Amino acid sequence: MRAARLFAYDKPLKVVDVGAPRLKNPMDVLVRVTGAGVCHTDLHIVEGVWREKVQVSLPYTLGHENAGVIEDVGDGVTAFKEGDKVILHPVRTDGLCRACRIGEEMHCENLVFPGITADGGFAEYLVTSERSLVNIHDLKPEDVAPLADAGLTAIRAVKKAASRTTSGSHVVVQGIGGLGHISLQLLRCMTNTVITATDVAESKLRLAEKLGAHHVVDARKDPVKQLMAITQKKGADVVIDLVGNDQTLANGMKMLRKGGSLIIVGYGGSLNLKAIDMIFAEVSVLGSLVGNWDELRELIELTRQGKVRVITRKGKLDEVNDFLEQLKKGTLEGRGVVIP
Amino acid sequence: MRAARLFAYDKPLKVVDVGAPRLKNPMDVLVRVTGAGVCHTDLHIVEGVWREKVQVSLPYTLGHENAGVIEDVGDGVTAFKEGDKVILHPVRTDGLCRACRIGEEMHCENLVFPGITADGGFAEYLVTSERSLVNIHDLKPEDVAPLADAGLTAIRAVKKAASRTTSGSHVVVQGIGGLGHISLQLLRCMTNTVITATDVAESKLRLAEKLGAHHVVDARKDPVKQLMAITQKKGADVVIDLVGNDQTLANGMKMLRKGGSLIIVGYGGSLNLKAIDMIFAEVSVLGSLVGNWDELRELIELTRQGKVRVITRKGKLDEVNDFLEQLKKGTLEGRGVVIP
Amino acid sequence: MRAARLFAYDKPLKVVDVGAPRLKNPMDVLVRVTGAGVCHTDLHIVEGVWREKVQVSLPYTLGHENAGVIEDVGDGVTAFKEGDKVILHPVRTDGLCRACRIGEEMHCENLVFPGITADGGFAEYLVTSERSLVNIHDLKPEDVAPLADAGLTAIRAVKKAASRTTSGSHVVVQGIGGLGHISLQLLRCMTNTVITATDVAESKLRLAEKLGAHHVVDARKDPVKQLMAITQKKGADVVIDLVGNDQTLANGMKMLRKGGSLIIVGYGGSLNLKAIDMIFAEVSVLGSLVGNWDELRELIELTRQGKVRVITRKGKLDEVNDFLEQLKKGTLEGRGVVIP
Amino acid sequence: MRAARLFAYDKPLKVVDVGAPRLKNPMDVLVRVTGAGVCHTDLHIVEGVWREKVQVSLPYTLGHENAGVIEDVGDGVTAFKEGDKVILHPVRTDGLCRACRIGEEMHCENLVFPGITADGGFAEYLVTSERSLVNIHDLKPEDVAPLADAGLTAIRAVKKAASRTTSGSHVVVQGIGGLGHISLQLLRCMTNTVITATDVAESKLRLAEKLGAHHVVDARKDPVKQLMAITQKKGADVVIDLVGNDQTLANGMKMLRKGGSLIIVGYGGSLNLKAIDMIFAEVSVLGSLVGNWDELRELIELTRQGKVRVITRKGKLDEVNDFLEQLKKGTLEGRGVVIP
Repeated sequence: MRAARLFAYDKPLKVVDVGAPRLKNPMDVLVRVTGAGVCHTDLHIVEGVWREKVQVSLPYTLGHENAGVIEDVGDGVTAFKEGDKVILHPVRTDGLCRACRIGEEMHCENLVFPGITADGGFAEYLVTSERSLVNIHDLKPEDVAPLADAGLTAIRAVKKAASRTTSGSHVVVQGIGGLGHISLQLLRCMTNTVITATDVAESKLRLAEKLGAHHVVDARKDPVKQLMAITQKKGADVVIDLVGNDQTLANGMKMLRKGGSLIIVGYGGSLNLKAIDMIFAEVSVLGSLVGNWDELRELIELTRQGKVRVITRKGKLDEVNDFLEQLKKGTLEGRGVVIP
Repeated sequence: MRAARLFAYDKPLKVVDVGAPRLKNPMDVLVRVTGAGVCHTDLHIVEGVWREKVQVSLPYTLGHENAGVIEDVGDGVTAFKEGDKVILHPVRTDGLCRACRIGEEMHCENLVFPGITADGGFAEYLVTSERSLVNIHDLKPEDVAPLADAGLTAIRAVKKAASRTTSGSHVVVQGIGGLGHISLQLLRCMTNTVITATDVAESKLRLAEKLGAHHVVDARKDPVKQLMAITQKKGADVVIDLVGNDQTLANGMKMLRKGGSLIIVGYGGSLNLKAIDMIFAEVSVLGSLVGNWDELRELIELTRQGKVRVITRKGKLDEVNDFLEQLKKGTLEGRGVVIP
Repeated sequence: MRAARLFAYDKPLKVVDVGAPRLKNPMDVLVRVTGAGVCHTDLHIVEGVWREKVQVSLPYTLGHENAGVIEDVGDGVTAFKEGDKVILHPVRTDGLCRACRIGEEMHCENLVFPGITADGGFAEYLVTSERSLVNIHDLKPEDVAPLADAGLTAIRAVKKAASRTTSGSHVVVQGIGGLGHISLQLLRCMTNTVITATDVAESKLRLAEKLGAHHVVDARKDPVKQLMAITQKKGADVVIDLVGNDQTLANGMKMLRKGGSLIIVGYGGSLNLKAIDMIFAEVSVLGSLVGNWDELRELIELTRQGKVRVITRKGKLDEVNDFLEQLKKGTLEGRGVVIP
Repeated sequence: MRAARLFAYDKPLKVVDVGAPRLKNPMDVLVRVTGAGVCHTDLHIVEGVWREKVQVSLPYTLGHENAGVIEDVGDGVTAFKEGDKVILHPVRTDGLCRACRIGEEMHCENLVFPGITADGGFAEYLVTSERSLVNIHDLKPEDVAPLADAGLTAIRAVKKAASRTTSGSHVVVQGIGGLGHISLQLLRCMTNTVITATDVAESKLRLAEKLGAHHVVDARKDPVKQLMAITQKKGADVVIDLVGNDQTLANGMKMLRKGGSLIIVGYGGSLNLKAIDMIFAEVSVLGSLVGNWDELRELIELTRQGKVRVITRKGKLDEVNDFLEQLKKGTLEGRGVVIP
C-alpha cells in the first residue's frame, strides 16, 4: 500500500509503497483509512521537536487523526464488524492499568501512539485495537477525521474550562486555527460563558465571529490591554492557549483574573513563572492533552447533533507536504485532510 | 495599647504605644489578641517583597495569624458574644460578591487583609468582622493561632492534593517548617497516600518521620533522584512546595508523574516552564492561597479531634523580632507565637 | 398599602389594607414590588398542605416570587442603592452558618421564607436583606419575577440533571407548566442531552416542542411504555418530576435506566420504594428545592443572554385568586404574575 | 472438582462433583479458589429473592466473594501470570461499553455475575477475565476474600458518604455485620466524621466501639430518638443502611438532617416516601451497589496499609450451609469464608 513516511528530520515526507499492516492480536481491527487530518504536531515531528520526548526510528508513517471503514476484525472483537464507519482514538492502550480503569487512558502505562511512536494513518490501511474505536454512524470519515486529535484535544481543554467557569464567566481562546475553530463551537454548546478570540490573522478573527465568539482581539495590538478593556479590568476566568509560543503564554498569564486558569495546549514556547504571582491570585496553569475515549464519543455525538462542524480542506495523500507547508505559513483555514 | 509595627523596610519591628481599635460597623467584633503567630510572610513584608503587590503606608502593625477572646461586639452581631474564644480568619470580606457567595471568600472583591494591607494582630486588640470568626470552644487561642494562616494555607493545599489522589498515591511535601509539619498531619488524617518529606535540615526530617511521613529525603542530596528511587521511577502524583525557591520549584516539576500536580505555596523563586513539558505529561501547576472560612472551621474540628497539633514556641510581644530572625535562619522548629 | 392575604385555609385570599413594612436592620432593603409570581405552592398553602411543615399564624400575606425596584436601603447596605431593579432570592438567611458559608443558603439554620413563613410579596412593598438581592439590570421586574422561585427551582433541578449526564444522555421532564417550560429552556442551553417532555395536556406538549423537547409523550397513554420505545428499552438517565403525584412518581421510577436518577420537585404524592429496586440498578431519588443565590444570578445571566424567557400572564393584585383558580384547573399557560 | 450448588430454592446447597471450568477466551484466567466468602445475598438467592431479578437455571454453583491463586492464563493475558495471588472483582465485563469506559463497570451492558447469574466460587476452580483481577501481593486469599463483595460494597457506600460530608459531619451505620464492621473501619480512615453505629445485638455494638464508632445505639430502643439526642436534634448528614428492612429504612429517613442522604445497601424491605418530605429538607435516597475495579484496588491498598481488616470465620466447603444458617440467625460475627 502507499504511505507518506518521514525518512529524515526537516525534510518533506515521501509517499512510498510499503506492506499493509495485518491483524496480530484477537482484539485487533484493520481499518481502511479514508480520512487523515494533517496537524501542527506533524510539523513539529518533522522539525524534530518530539525527538527527545519519544523513541522512534526513521522511516515511519505519520498521521494520527484517522477515520475510515473497518476492513477486517480479529477473533476476539465483539463490538464492531466489517463495514462499520469509525473514527480512531489516537492512542492504543492496555485497558488494564489504573489510568485506563478510571477512563484516563491517555495516561496508559503501555501506550502506543500511531503516527507519533509507531506507523500512523497517512496510509491506505491501519491496524488498531477495538478499544480505540468509536462508531461514527451516518457521518463521513473524511469529514470527521480531524476530530480524532484536533477535536479531541479541543474538547478536553473546553471541558477543563467548563468545569472552572459558570454562566457569564469570561473565556479567552488564543489561536483560531484547526483546534481553535472547534474550541469556539464547543464553548458555545457546552458553556454559557462570554468568549474572546485572539489571533494575528484578520481572516481568523472573522471566522471566530461567525462561530460565535462574543469579542475578537487582534493579537498584534496589545491583546492583554484589549482583554482588560473588554472585561472591565477583571481579566478572564480561563485562557485557552492553542498557540503556546513565548508571547501567547506570557499574555495568557497576564490576562487571568483571581482564581483563573491558563490551559496550555499549543507548545513550542516557554513561560517564566514567579511563585508569588501563582499564589497571590491563586491561579492555575494546566497542561492539556488529547482527550479520552468518552470525550471522543461525546464529540461525535455533538457532531451528529449538528453543534460541531470541522472546516476541512481535502486532498490526496500526495498533497500532505503541501498541507504541512500551509500550516507552517499559517495560511490554511480549518484543517487539511488527506484521503489515502 | 502596645503593638509591634513596621516603620521601615528591612528594619526590625518596633513595639510602640498606639490607640486601641474600636467597633465601627454593626457586624464588628473587638478581639483581645492572646496569640499571634509569626510567619514567613512577615519576613517577606519586612524585606519589601509584598511592596509591589499591595498598597499600604508605613508604619503599620503586622500579624495575620490571630486568636483571642471577644471583648466587645457590634449591634448587629448575632452569632458571637463577649468572652467567646475565637480564631480569626485572616481576611475581612464583604459576603456579597460572587466569590463570597460560593465560599471562596479569599477572592472577595472587597478584601481587607489585616497584618498585610491593614493593622494586624501583633497588638493587644484587633477589630474584625463577625464573618471572619470561628469559635474554638475548649482550645486555647495561643495554641491554635498559627492555624489562622499557616494551618489554613496547609489545609487548602492538602485538600487540593486530596482531590487529585487516591489511596496509595504518592505525595511529596517540600519543607517541614511551620506549614510543613501541619501539612503532614493533615495528609495523614485526610488521605491514605504515601508521603515523602524533604528538607535541608536533619532535625526537620526527624520531625517529619515522627509526624507520619513514610519516606524522608535530604534535599541537599539530589532529591529528584531519591524520589524516583522511592517511587520506582514513577514520580509523585502531587508535590506540595512549601518553600518556593528556584531549586524546589525546579525539583518539584521533575518529580511529577503523568497527570501529576505541583502545588505552589511557598514563594520567592521562579520556574521556567516549557509548554511541551506541560502538555506531554499533562501536568498542572497550581498556586495555593490561604483557605476559606469552612476550611478554618474544618481545621479547628480536626484539632479538637486531636488529629492536628501545632508545635509552637511562645514569647512576649517584644520577642517578635527574635522569632523573625530565627525564621530567617531556619532555626525555628514549629511556629513562633507572641502573646500580646 | 394593599396586600393579598390568607385569612383562612381553603378560602380565597383577601386584598386588604395593611401598614407598609419598614427597615429594621442595617442590611435591610425596602423593595417596591412590581412583579409577584403566583405559584402552585400558594395553592398548596391555601389548601393547608404546608400547615404541618411550617409555623405561621393567619392572616398573612402570600407571594414568594418577587421582583421590583429598591425604594430605600439600611445604613449598612453597600452593594445596592435606591432605584436599582432587583429580583429577590426567596429566602432571608444569616450568612453565618455553615450552609450559608458553602453557598447552600437554602439550608440556612436561621431561615425566613417570606410568603410562606412570613409576609410575602403580594403587596406593594416588601423588606428583605441585601444578601437576598440580585441586580437584574436591563430586565423588567414583572417579566422575571417567576424566576425567583419557579425558575430558581428549575435551574437547581436542571443543574442536578446536568451533573449526572453527558452529551447524548436522555432526560425526561414530567409536567410542562410554570417550572417545566423554564426547565426545558435550561436543559437546552446547559446540556446536550436528548429531552422527552410529558404532560396530560395537548397544548403543553405543543409548547414543549416549541421550546426544544426532542420527544413529547402524552402522559395519559402509558408514558413508561412510550419512553422505553423512544430510548430503545434503555430508559432515561434522569427523570425530573415537576408534578409529584403518585402516578408521576411511580412512572418516574420505572423510566430510569441503570444508575439513573429521579429528581423530585413537585409534591403532593408519595412513592413506594423497594430497597432491592434501589440497589439492583443503583438508582438515586433526589429531592430538589429552590436554588441558592448564585443559581439565581446564573438564571438572570441566562435570561439576559436571551436563552431563557418566562412565559407570563400579567394581572392586577386583585386577580390573584383568578390565577390560583386557573392553576388548580391546569388551564394557565406559563406563569401568572400580579403587579401590585 | 467439588462445588457447593443450589439445586432447589429454600433448600440447603449440595456439595457435589462437577467438571472444572476451562479457559475459553484469550483474556481468560483460571483461578484456584482458596477463599470464598458467604454473604447475605447467598441467603437471599436460596430464598428466591433474586428469582425475578435475574435469569439463571438450577442447579448452579453459588459464591461471589472469591480470591485465590492463578493456575493458568489465556494467550492474550499480559498483566498476570501463574502463581499470582489475586482477588476477583465480582463481575465480568466487556470493557467496551460506556459504563466500562468511565470506570463504572458494574453497570456494564454485557455483565456476567458469577455466583449469581453463572457458576461461582464455592468450588475448587473458577474462570474469570484478566479485567476482573486485582493482585493482592503479600495478603492471603482466605483473609481477604470477603473484600470482593462485602468490602467492595462497603467502600462504595462509604465513598458516597465521604463525598457528601466534611470533617465533623455525622454518619450513622445501621447494622454491624459483615459489611458494617468493614464500613466502620473505612469511615475511620477515609473521613473525619463522627460515627454512630446501630444494631440489635449487644455484641455487635461492642464490636462497633472497638472499631472506632464514636456512639453506639441499641436499635431495639427507639434509635431515631437516641440519634437525635446524640446530634442535638440536628440529625445525621448520612445514614448508611446495611440492613434494608422496613424498620431500618423508615428510621433512616427520620434520622436525616437538611440536605442529608440515606444510602441503601441492605435490601428486603421497602419505604413509603412522601414527595414533600424529599423536597422540604432536600434529602437524597441513594441505592448503592458493589464497587468498581478501582475501588477494589483501593480496598486492597488500605488492607495492605493495615487500616482495614476483615474479621473472618473459616471453614471447609462442606460448612457452607452452617454459615448460611448462622447468617440467617444473626449469630455470625464478621464474615464466614469457605476454603474449597
